[in-house]
Amino acid sequence: MVIVMRPNTQKKEIEKIRRKMESLGCSIHASQGESFYLLGLVGDTSKIDPDQIKANRNVEKLIFVQEPYKKVNRLFQPLDSVISVRDQSVGGKKLAIMAGPCSVESEEQIITIAEQIKESGASFLRGGAFKPRTSPYSFQGLKEDGLELLKLAREKTGLPIVTELMSAEYVEKFVEDVDVIQIGARNMQNFDLLKEVGKTNIPILLKRGMSATIEELLMAAEYIMSEGNEKVILCERGVRTFEQYTRNTLDLSAIPVIKKLSHLPVIVDPSHAGGLWWLVEPLAKAAIAVGADGLMIEVHNDPANAKCDGQQSITPERFKSLMDTLKAIANIENREL
Amino acid sequence: MVIVMRPNTQKKEIEKIRRKMESLGCSIHASQGESFYLLGLVGDTSKIDPDQIKANRNVEKLIFVQEPYKKVNRLFQPLDSVISVRDQSVGGKKLAIMAGPCSVESEEQIITIAEQIKESGASFLRGGAFKPRTSPYSFQGLKEDGLELLKLAREKTGLPIVTELMSAEYVEKFVEDVDVIQIGARNMQNFDLLKEVGKTNIPILLKRGMSATIEELLMAAEYIMSEGNEKVILCERGVRTFEQYTRNTLDLSAIPVIKKLSHLPVIVDPSHAGGLWWLVEPLAKAAIAVGADGLMIEVHNDPANAKCDGQQSITPERFKSLMDTLKAIANIENREL
Amino acid sequence: MVIVMRPNTQKKEIEKIRRKMESLGCSIHASQGESFYLLGLVGDTSKIDPDQIKANRNVEKLIFVQEPYKKVNRLFQPLDSVISVRDQSVGGKKLAIMAGPCSVESEEQIITIAEQIKESGASFLRGGAFKPRTSPYSFQGLKEDGLELLKLAREKTGLPIVTELMSAEYVEKFVEDVDVIQIGARNMQNFDLLKEVGKTNIPILLKRGMSATIEELLMAAEYIMSEGNEKVILCERGVRTFEQYTRNTLDLSAIPVIKKLSHLPVIVDPSHAGGLWWLVEPLAKAAIAVGADGLMIEVHNDPANAKCDGQQSITPERFKSLMDTLKAIANIENREL
Amino acid sequence: MVIVMRPNTQKKEIEKIRRKMESLGCSIHASQGESFYLLGLVGDTSKIDPDQIKANRNVEKLIFVQEPYKKVNRLFQPLDSVISVRDQSVGGKKLAIMAGPCSVESEEQIITIAEQIKESGASFLRGGAFKPRTSPYSFQGLKEDGLELLKLAREKTGLPIVTELMSAEYVEKFVEDVDVIQIGARNMQNFDLLKEVGKTNIPILLKRGMSATIEELLMAAEYIMSEGNEKVILCERGVRTFEQYTRNTLDLSAIPVIKKLSHLPVIVDPSHAGGLWWLVEPLAKAAIAVGADGLMIEVHNDPANAKCDGQQSITPERFKSLMDTLKAIANIENREL
Repeated sequence: MVIVMRPNTQKKEIEKIRRKMESLGCSIHASQGESFYLLGLVGDTSKIDPDQIKANRNVEKLIFVQEPYKKVNRLFQPLDSVISVRDQSVGGKKLAIMAGPCSVESEEQIITIAEQIKESGASFLRGGAFKPRTSPYSFQGLKEDGLELLKLAREKTGLPIVTELMSAEYVEKFVEDVDVIQIGARNMQNFDLLKEVGKTNIPILLKRGMSATIEELLMAAEYIMSEGNEKVILCERGVRTFEQYTRNTLDLSAIPVIKKLSHLPVIVDPSHAGGLWWLVEPLAKAAIAVGADGLMIEVHNDPANAKCDGQQSITPERFKSLMDTLKAIANIENREL
Repeated sequence: MVIVMRPNTQKKEIEKIRRKMESLGCSIHASQGESFYLLGLVGDTSKIDPDQIKANRNVEKLIFVQEPYKKVNRLFQPLDSVISVRDQSVGGKKLAIMAGPCSVESEEQIITIAEQIKESGASFLRGGAFKPRTSPYSFQGLKEDGLELLKLAREKTGLPIVTELMSAEYVEKFVEDVDVIQIGARNMQNFDLLKEVGKTNIPILLKRGMSATIEELLMAAEYIMSEGNEKVILCERGVRTFEQYTRNTLDLSAIPVIKKLSHLPVIVDPSHAGGLWWLVEPLAKAAIAVGADGLMIEVHNDPANAKCDGQQSITPERFKSLMDTLKAIANIENREL
Repeated sequence: MVIVMRPNTQKKEIEKIRRKMESLGCSIHASQGESFYLLGLVGDTSKIDPDQIKANRNVEKLIFVQEPYKKVNRLFQPLDSVISVRDQSVGGKKLAIMAGPCSVESEEQIITIAEQIKESGASFLRGGAFKPRTSPYSFQGLKEDGLELLKLAREKTGLPIVTELMSAEYVEKFVEDVDVIQIGARNMQNFDLLKEVGKTNIPILLKRGMSATIEELLMAAEYIMSEGNEKVILCERGVRTFEQYTRNTLDLSAIPVIKKLSHLPVIVDPSHAGGLWWLVEPLAKAAIAVGADGLMIEVHNDPANAKCDGQQSITPERFKSLMDTLKAIANIENREL
Repeated sequence: MVIVMRPNTQKKEIEKIRRKMESLGCSIHASQGESFYLLGLVGDTSKIDPDQIKANRNVEKLIFVQEPYKKVNRLFQPLDSVISVRDQSVGGKKLAIMAGPCSVESEEQIITIAEQIKESGASFLRGGAFKPRTSPYSFQGLKEDGLELLKLAREKTGLPIVTELMSAEYVEKFVEDVDVIQIGARNMQNFDLLKEVGKTNIPILLKRGMSATIEELLMAAEYIMSEGNEKVILCERGVRTFEQYTRNTLDLSAIPVIKKLSHLPVIVDPSHAGGLWWLVEPLAKAAIAVGADGLMIEVHNDPANAKCDGQQSITPERFKSLMDTLKAIANIENREL
């Protein structure tokens, strides 16, 4: 951390800050630049609250050298994390493909789709039981009944199930019922929820918020890990920009960047990113080519009558042919599907 | 709602959609344009889920004529809503000035500040007890103890208290203890929380999410109102953009736009918008000039030692002189402070 | 085009607009919705200036059904355009790989690099002679001398040359000297420059502006084509967002979207997008997987001493190995390199 | 400037960079942090090209302490610049109000409007002769004839004229004919044009690009000033964000920020920012309250028939009443109109 003092700050004010930092356990390297006086902090700066330094009216700016996260930081854990889920895993050589409908609608629907995607090579079943919707008048999911249907589908196919948790109230139930708890983009900074799932020991799929920086996504993962749960899977699903043709702008650069900064696995959701079914295939291929550890894809057997997100769901047939292409791309990168 | 069909869609496919729409109670005005076939829906389109229409592969795009919100819509309630809070109100001729520290730190701190801001003319006391922080290692607020201190300050000064609720778990306690429940920017689309506060009858201060459109803010208010609670106060606090000098970019255009679209009162938070104490005063003045119904301002008696947000807090002395200027601007607009 | 009238607009005002539209050659389909009165315009709306309609105070909003561009529109030219450049082409089965240094620095430098990239399979040589730089104090390029060196390199290798034109003053010289004129992101809406290159018959590489929507990029291409030059190659190079880790956010969704909306070829520049050399390879692979018609890559034989953009240039050795991987991905998509 | 080396960089590599920096005239303060090795550069760093440092593969990141601009920097010129234009000025106690139509359409139109705005207290006449339009099929302005009409209007009213220059080709003509040359948002980084107007000695009104940071705006001003022309007036006119209700998002925080960083005067254009006539008045008031040195407002005597931007133009009558309110707000801030 480097503190830049305002020009013409009095010596005694600089002395005050210097002593305060030293009292917090840091040693100081001071240097007088052309126009600014700098205080470089050496030592464990993790106990220092940057807000408090910036609050000092003599401080021009504060410059961070080290990233603010620890447990997610690759610097302190150089090897890739691999998260085991039943007999599957996320983060290793094999890519994790999570597929299924936006929302669970009926026993027949979820079992049919589960069987189809399994046959095509998917390793996880996704499906919403509790649905976050922009409008209070839209379908909100089958809730507990949806969870039961997901369990039935798991029984039939053996596929581990991934579904979104929206409220701390249901944490215990989810821990019992599901294999991976998804935290949606809108709740990425619902810190109370992050802490609650951090106290469980079940894998958490954490989606990047629509306007979250990569650093904020990693800090949200840090919230979960700091409570003890180290099984975190990250997911890029598009960020909000000025471009309106697509629902969001998929940020594929985030994949190699996250891989550099963190040891956690990261997958891509091409369905929510573009919001258009015909974008799912090209974006899925690009995601594998860029180095993602897996995908989350919306598949529906009757998109035109889906209760939600039909416009961004692909059919089981298209999913099957997509999987073949993905396999070929994965092989080039020495990975498996 | 206008449905635009893809070029070369077969007649029978168009017929199918037409019949489906009619079965949902709409009448159809069809017209063949130069390249596209259009279906205009007339009638109550509120039961129609736009996702389902867009899911149809023959639909090129869907165009909305009417806004998707009802209870917040000025079209259906032309008069300004005025929200009463104890002996104060938000939305009428008198501007509502909410001031206080980022977080409650001690009895002495909160009471001193409350008395000072009251003397300067503030009408509400704000102060955080539960704090959403980007880092799990930062100060998270005094929690229940903070609420108790806020109540003490209210007793001393008579100022109604405004504080942030982060989790549904505490709704009942907040209903008992506080006068206005704040929903923070990061929870603007925490739909479960919105529904919970929608079931209370206490005023809700709803902050715009960092990347929420004005329409999404109004839809979030609709969530609260659709559960029965009509006492919603909106708050603009800056949106996320590419500009990094300021923490967020305050969107003052949103004030007249919201006033046009909705009858709900709307205030501005200049402290969080800029994130810099020396921006608070010019932005507060601009907010009143643009027509806001009030302000939420962070005031701290010792910013350099504040437990959070010291860099964006102003001192009680500056607050006092700011209030004088604000009064003069308010008078020009025929409003009071 | 659909005109939505404000609620309670007087009949005579509606009549006025209707007659005005009819006088411009459109026929009108009117319909009275729940709250709004709609006027649907049928016929050639291209002569209607939308600004003038929106300027009418009784108009609530204006809704576009048809895209505003014509010559770039796939609707009117369903087949992919293939742009020939000497013995190469852009837009067909074979991918166009343009590689070379950010700026031409010396005869030895440009010829060495040109020979190396040619050997690895590049089909075009890129290199800046006139450089747009954020700071007036940075290296501005070798200018005319740079053009001469590019021509020497072309002579040696046979590779067609691509270089940026920044000012109308040099159009004639570029037409004589170079094979593809590049219009940079910052000049995408320099309409005078677009018109000037539109009057030539040399291929134009048009880069997407940092904050340009896909529609605006296509409108900029329309500027060039409307002057008679139909040889336009589009280039996605990242857009500006709130994310600061990367220089820009590469928008790969734009590739399939542009392919749907337009018949023009589109390539990707992974070097400028991320601004970091270690992002070039994963993003290049993703670009081919998503369906781009080619790439523009910065290659430098001594990045640490490059006069510009060394941080985002890769070495000829890495370029060679990247080309092998790209070839494999291209083959999966039934394309060649 | 602080150079952060990658962890585990070899000593000899660090030594190499250190010597290179010293050879460029800097002295170095090195310090070994917890994980990173830092090199602080002291001295005149203006000759160092940051790109070249970042290009070094052993450099983790580069941190800037000092702003990259000089001539626009308030650090080196603490007093506010006041730009004189005929008998008017921009930047002093008196606010500069520039008003007039989007484009000059006829002698009668421009003279009528000029007389009306003068009577209401405007001090400059704005009007477009050369118009940048998104579509090549829209009205492009009266060009040279437009300039002649502006001169006529100046003769009649004495108001200095402000109009946009789009191409270096017309610089000389503009120097002869107009009083302030406007560089539009789309040309803010048309560096060749900036250099050309930098060689004149006529005041330049430089508009912020749609996606330009404040720093980039100041760097564009630096381009003009570095060529010798110190008469630069900055203009905030809204930036591009995800919000689509307004054309752009007016960034009023930029005003106090620019005032802190630079000595140059800065005005606000509320017409282009919102793109809606009913937003002009509230935003104009906010702009004065926030501390702008003036305004640029589109006024048209018949907006519904304006050749461009009618939807964001206000009538002379509204302009007159707005001026009265602006005067009252200006007085509170101890400024005049």
